[in-house]
Amino acid sequence: MSGSDDKWEQILRVAARLFAQRGYHGTGMTELGDAAGLQRGALYYYIRSKENLLYEISSRHVAEMVDFGERLAKEERPATDKLLRLSERLIRTIHDDLDEVTVFFREIGALTGERRQRVFELRDRFEEVWMSILQQGVSEGTFRRADPLLIKAVLGMHNYSYLWLRPDGKMQPEEVARYFCELLFRGILTETGDAEYRSFTANS
Amino acid sequence: MSGSDDKWEQILRVAARLFAQRGYHGTGMTELGDAAGLQRGALYYYIRSKENLLYEISSRHVAEMVDFGERLAKEERPATDKLLRLSERLIRTIHDDLDEVTVFFREIGALTGERRQRVFELRDRFEEVWMSILQQGVSEGTFRRADPLLIKAVLGMHNYSYLWLRPDGKMQPEEVARYFCELLFRGILTETGDAEYRSFTANS
Repeated sequence: MSGSDDKWEQILRVAARLFAQRGYHGTGMTELGDAAGLQRGALYYYIRSKENLLYEISSRHVAEMVDFGERLAKEERPATDKLLRLSERLIRTIHDDLDEVTVFFREIGALTGERRQRVFELRDRFEEVWMSILQQGVSEGTFRRADPLLIKAVLGMHNYSYLWLRPDGKMQPEEVARYFCELLFRGILTETGDAEYRSFTANS
Repeated sequence: MSGSDDKWEQILRVAARLFAQRGYHGTGMTELGDAAGLQRGALYYYIRSKENLLYEISSRHVAEMVDFGERLAKEERPATDKLLRLSERLIRTIHDDLDEVTVFFREIGALTGERRQRVFELRDRFEEVWMSILQQGVSEGTFRRADPLLIKAVLGMHNYSYLWLRPDGKMQPEEVARYFCELLFRGILTETGDAEYRSFTANS
C-alpha cells in the first residue's frame, strides 16, 4: 500500500468515527481536517467532496458483503449451512466496522444522484442473496418459507445489532450469529408450547 | 380538548413530520413556526424548548406501549397469547405513529439530562415487559428460552419495520405481527431441515 493509500484509509476511519458520533451533517470540514491532520486543500485532494467520503464509508463494507454473499450463494452447500455463513459474515462485519455500519444505517439518506443509486442497488443485491438462499432451502425441502417479510424479519434481527453489539463485548460475533440462526431455524416453542399455540390459533 | 391542547397536538404532529424528514438538528425554529402557523414567541409559549418538543415526540408512544405492556404482563393469559398481543401493539404503534417512532429511533441520542434519562428508562421498562413474558413462557414449559440476546433478536425483528412498513402498505400491522410471532415460535425448518441441521451442527 502506498503512502497516499495509507492516508486515504486513515481519513476514512477518522471520518467514519466522527460521522457515527456527530452525524454527517453535524461534522464540519474543519473538524475532519483537524482530526486527520490535514489542511483544507490537502483534505479535498484526498476526498474530492464530503459526499464522496460518505459514499466510500457507506458502500465499502456492503460491497464486500454482497461479493461474499453472491459467491456463497453459488456454492454447493445446503441452505442451512449457507444461511449460517451469511449470518456470521454479517454480524462479524457489524462488529468489526461498527462506525461504518452506523453511518450506513443512519446517513445513506443524505446521499444523492448516482452515489445514492449505487448504495441502494448494493442493499437490494444483499437482500437478493438472502432470498436466493431461503428459496434454495424451500426447493430442498428444508425451509418452510421464503418471502419478502421473512427477509425483513431476518435482516431486522441482524441489523439491529449495530445498536447494542460492542467491540469489547463478551460474545463473539459468530456466537451471536449461531444464536440468531438457531432461533430462526427452530423458534422458541417447546412441544407443549406448540400444542398450546395450535389450539389457541385454531380458536381465534 | 381545549383549543390550547389542539394547538399543542398540531405542533407535535408537524414537528414529528419535520424531524423525521430532515432530522432534529436539521430542522430550525423558523421552519417549525412556519409549518405550525405560529410566530416565534407563540411557538416558544407552547413548546418551551426544542428539546422539550423532541422529548414529547419521542416519549409519548413509548410510554403508552410500556403502560399497555405492564398491564398485559400482569393478566392471566398464556405467554404465547401475551407475546402475540404485545407484538401486535408494537407493530400497530410503529405503523400508526411512523414519524414519532422514526424520531425516537434516530434522535433520542440528542436528548440530554433528565429527559434523556426518562426516555432510556421507558425503553428499559419495555424490554423488561418482553423479558417477563418470555420468562413466564419458560416457567409454563411453553418457551425454550428467555435471555437478553432473545430480547434483542425479537425487538430487532419488530423495530426494523419502521424502515419498511408503510401506512398505505397492503398488509395490516396485525398480519405482520402474526407472521413475526409464527416465525419466532416455530422457526423455518421443516422436519427434513431439522434433521439435516442436527447432523450438520453435530459435525462442526
